[in-house]
Amino acid sequence: MAKLQQLADLVGGELKGDADLDIFQVAPIDQAQQGDITFVANPKYLAKLNNCQASAVILAPGVDAPGMDLIVCKNPYLAFAKILTFLQVLKRPIKGVMPGAWIADSAVIDKTATIYPGCVVGEGVTIGASSTLYPGVVIYDDVTIGQDCLLHAQSIVRENCRIGDRVILQPAVVIGSDGFGFAPDGDSYYKIPQVGIVVLEDDVEIGSNSCVDRAVLGETRIRRGTKLDNLVQIGHNVVVGEDCILVSQSGVAGSTTIGNHCTFGGQAAIAGHLKVGDNVMIGGRGGATGDVAPNQILSGLPLMPHKQWLRATMTLPKLPEMRKDMQKIKKRLEELEALLKEK
Amino acid sequence: MAKLQQLADLVGGELKGDADLDIFQVAPIDQAQQGDITFVANPKYLAKLNNCQASAVILAPGVDAPGMDLIVCKNPYLAFAKILTFLQVLKRPIKGVMPGAWIADSAVIDKTATIYPGCVVGEGVTIGASSTLYPGVVIYDDVTIGQDCLLHAQSIVRENCRIGDRVILQPAVVIGSDGFGFAPDGDSYYKIPQVGIVVLEDDVEIGSNSCVDRAVLGETRIRRGTKLDNLVQIGHNVVVGEDCILVSQSGVAGSTTIGNHCTFGGQAAIAGHLKVGDNVMIGGRGGATGDVAPNQILSGLPLMPHKQWLRATMTLPKLPEMRKDMQKIKKRLEELEALLKEK
Amino acid sequence: MAKLQQLADLVGGELKGDADLDIFQVAPIDQAQQGDITFVANPKYLAKLNNCQASAVILAPGVDAPGMDLIVCKNPYLAFAKILTFLQVLKRPIKGVMPGAWIADSAVIDKTATIYPGCVVGEGVTIGASSTLYPGVVIYDDVTIGQDCLLHAQSIVRENCRIGDRVILQPAVVIGSDGFGFAPDGDSYYKIPQVGIVVLEDDVEIGSNSCVDRAVLGETRIRRGTKLDNLVQIGHNVVVGEDCILVSQSGVAGSTTIGNHCTFGGQAAIAGHLKVGDNVMIGGRGGATGDVAPNQILSGLPLMPHKQWLRATMTLPKLPEMRKDMQKIKKRLEELEALLKEK
Repeated sequence: MAKLQQLADLVGGELKGDADLDIFQVAPIDQAQQGDITFVANPKYLAKLNNCQASAVILAPGVDAPGMDLIVCKNPYLAFAKILTFLQVLKRPIKGVMPGAWIADSAVIDKTATIYPGCVVGEGVTIGASSTLYPGVVIYDDVTIGQDCLLHAQSIVRENCRIGDRVILQPAVVIGSDGFGFAPDGDSYYKIPQVGIVVLEDDVEIGSNSCVDRAVLGETRIRRGTKLDNLVQIGHNVVVGEDCILVSQSGVAGSTTIGNHCTFGGQAAIAGHLKVGDNVMIGGRGGATGDVAPNQILSGLPLMPHKQWLRATMTLPKLPEMRKDMQKIKKRLEELEALLKEK
Repeated sequence: MAKLQQLADLVGGELKGDADLDIFQVAPIDQAQQGDITFVANPKYLAKLNNCQASAVILAPGVDAPGMDLIVCKNPYLAFAKILTFLQVLKRPIKGVMPGAWIADSAVIDKTATIYPGCVVGEGVTIGASSTLYPGVVIYDDVTIGQDCLLHAQSIVRENCRIGDRVILQPAVVIGSDGFGFAPDGDSYYKIPQVGIVVLEDDVEIGSNSCVDRAVLGETRIRRGTKLDNLVQIGHNVVVGEDCILVSQSGVAGSTTIGNHCTFGGQAAIAGHLKVGDNVMIGGRGGATGDVAPNQILSGLPLMPHKQWLRATMTLPKLPEMRKDMQKIKKRLEELEALLKEK
Repeated sequence: MAKLQQLADLVGGELKGDADLDIFQVAPIDQAQQGDITFVANPKYLAKLNNCQASAVILAPGVDAPGMDLIVCKNPYLAFAKILTFLQVLKRPIKGVMPGAWIADSAVIDKTATIYPGCVVGEGVTIGASSTLYPGVVIYDDVTIGQDCLLHAQSIVRENCRIGDRVILQPAVVIGSDGFGFAPDGDSYYKIPQVGIVVLEDDVEIGSNSCVDRAVLGETRIRRGTKLDNLVQIGHNVVVGEDCILVSQSGVAGSTTIGNHCTFGGQAAIAGHLKVGDNVMIGGRGGATGDVAPNQILSGLPLMPHKQWLRATMTLPKLPEMRKDMQKIKKRLEELEALLKEK
């Protein structure tokens, strides 16, 4: 619970209304009750405020909600996220190394870290202050994990990998599995040892059941602030830039380098050994088969400007008809040509 | 082992033959031996019965297998499944909480439940009668799990989620991981806390390594009887209706609502914030980018009627040829036009 | 560390230079330092040797690197892999059954096997010599695991499955989860028990978070030497031949049989109940919807020869323009036809 003034201060917003109002939780506009604060990030939902029971609302400057207590700020969506964090996210308790966790003798665990039962931490591992390992996390030898990290149940970090500060691994994430490399040896394949590592920089988040493969030599690196959704695949020796967003079931093949501020939609795929520039947005199921210059919005396989792809895909259902039309046109042409020959 | 009469009664079928016949197991038509029962669900496989060594066969009414003992029933495939369950699925033993499982003090575990070593069960959890948690299952705090549930090894249910009766989680399923939500904050992203839950209703089954994300606020819900295959992604605040089938590697993005009795093929994808009606069938790798009206069979990206998609894709390989044809047509047209101008 | 002569002998190559040279590690051509050995597998990178600091280089016959110590052999890439294994892959220590592992009474574990804490091994399991189970591996009852296997953390093998020798499971692999089979029963679905098994033959490797489903009856089989990347799905009763390569996020639906020496690109999909011949290469995101004859390179959905697919996809962005062109052509035709009628 918080006073409305307190929340306005938290988000750097301007209070318009009762500073002393008690706010208990955050709720979406069509479910909010008394005691709730809600928000309008998109002006098209403003009309919904008329029937809204919320005690207060977060709005952008220049719009109003008559009769309601307001926090006015430039980015209501961000303010909503910050207030939700403040009101409803519990601080993780410090529990130390709990019974049922197996910690190797040479591992160094900060006193303020929490290791739940069923975790296994290898030799030479370092775990920083206030980091939490939920049950069943496995950390192989010689891994470094920074401060304030949150590793959910069953997530795995293999040997020698390095995890920055405030990194979040959702459940069952695999960091540092072997890259997929084999040398043809007659009809069979000889495994190329993958002796490199993975580096996750600060503020990276990886979704459930996603995989980031270790490098064959050197490193695979996910730069600061980048977020991966569930079931995403990152191949060996890939570099993903800062503040990228990779949506669920997308994949980046080995040795590709991605710039900063890129966004890849669901099931998008980037082939191996490519360079993708900064600020590239690739739509869902888009597929990059060559280098991509920066500052573009692309879709499709092959990639093309998103608007062109929209037009191209609208044409797809008409292909059989186009083909028939073309046959008819040919026939009419032949008739005309014959007619002209006669004359 | 069972008598043939017993099996006929089990499936509500009509016995034609030796009621006392001993049946030991179920086998496919081309591998069945003496003592086996087999089935023919598709009339095109009837001829295979001539060389079949099975002791008995399950058939639909109106067909016959001379010289064989029969169970005649409307749905031979369903009867096969029921007889297979009866003859060959072992009852799970009741083992209670086994040594090596870590159970929080306030968790309430039914006496007939089984918790294998390596499981970790959090505070405030309830686990119903005859439910089984295989090794390494992690249940976070305040989760409710119903009766007769089967949670395979390493499956994970995060805090506050609710699991109905007879729910099956295959190995390494993740229920309740954070939805993928971030508010832009300058060039970076601020994590939107995901404080909602996941509800899996009765008789839901989820395949290996599939993920169902918790809601940002409110709930993500999979309704009664729906089955998800392996590596399927369900985003936050999604609702999937009753008796749906989602085949492997398909995905549903956040805040989309799916009706009842829908079937999505492998690698199919449904974009976010959509409504899909009842009885919609989407073919493998189909992609919904807008709302979908009920009672349709669709394929492709964009979605189109399945038959139209078949025709459109058959045209795809002919595109380069069509393009060349069009160049030729243009040339012939120009020649005709020039010729006519002359005259 | 090794002498150059020793490494030449290891790979069956010819030494040209200082047999006594000390080599410490393997490095890529643009990062190699003194004491490193590097390799050139592709002649287009030969020029890079001019600025390379490596002490020695592995080359194919017929090329030279003046002033450098050489190992000359037919397959430099394979030699690189073998030398990397020799120099930089540590032998796994034999640790036996470690405290914190739960082993059923009737399991038979070879004395030279290693079982880390957090593993759970069921009744009737056999584990062969020199095999290693990393933390959190779960082996259900009556599984057989051969010699020299490496099962990474949290990998799971369900009941009755059989694993050959030198098999590698990356972290969180699921072997033997239930196939996706349900019999319609009115509007709902009745689960078809999956009572078959999975067989992984010798030298198979499976990537992180990949799933191989058990057969409904009989077996799902991955033959000798086949390698699966991360997040790959193999349905029930599938057979994958010898020495195949399945790249990340690809999938094979139930009851399909794949020949030997096939390669499927990322996100490729093979529908169910098909036969794919030997030596078939399917490009990334290709989709097989019918049987595939042997010895082909195919891409697309539907599959077509790879070169034809390249041309077809290059035409895709031009579809809207083609459609407009066709409208114009029709108009010009009509004008010509009208003109000719007049005359």
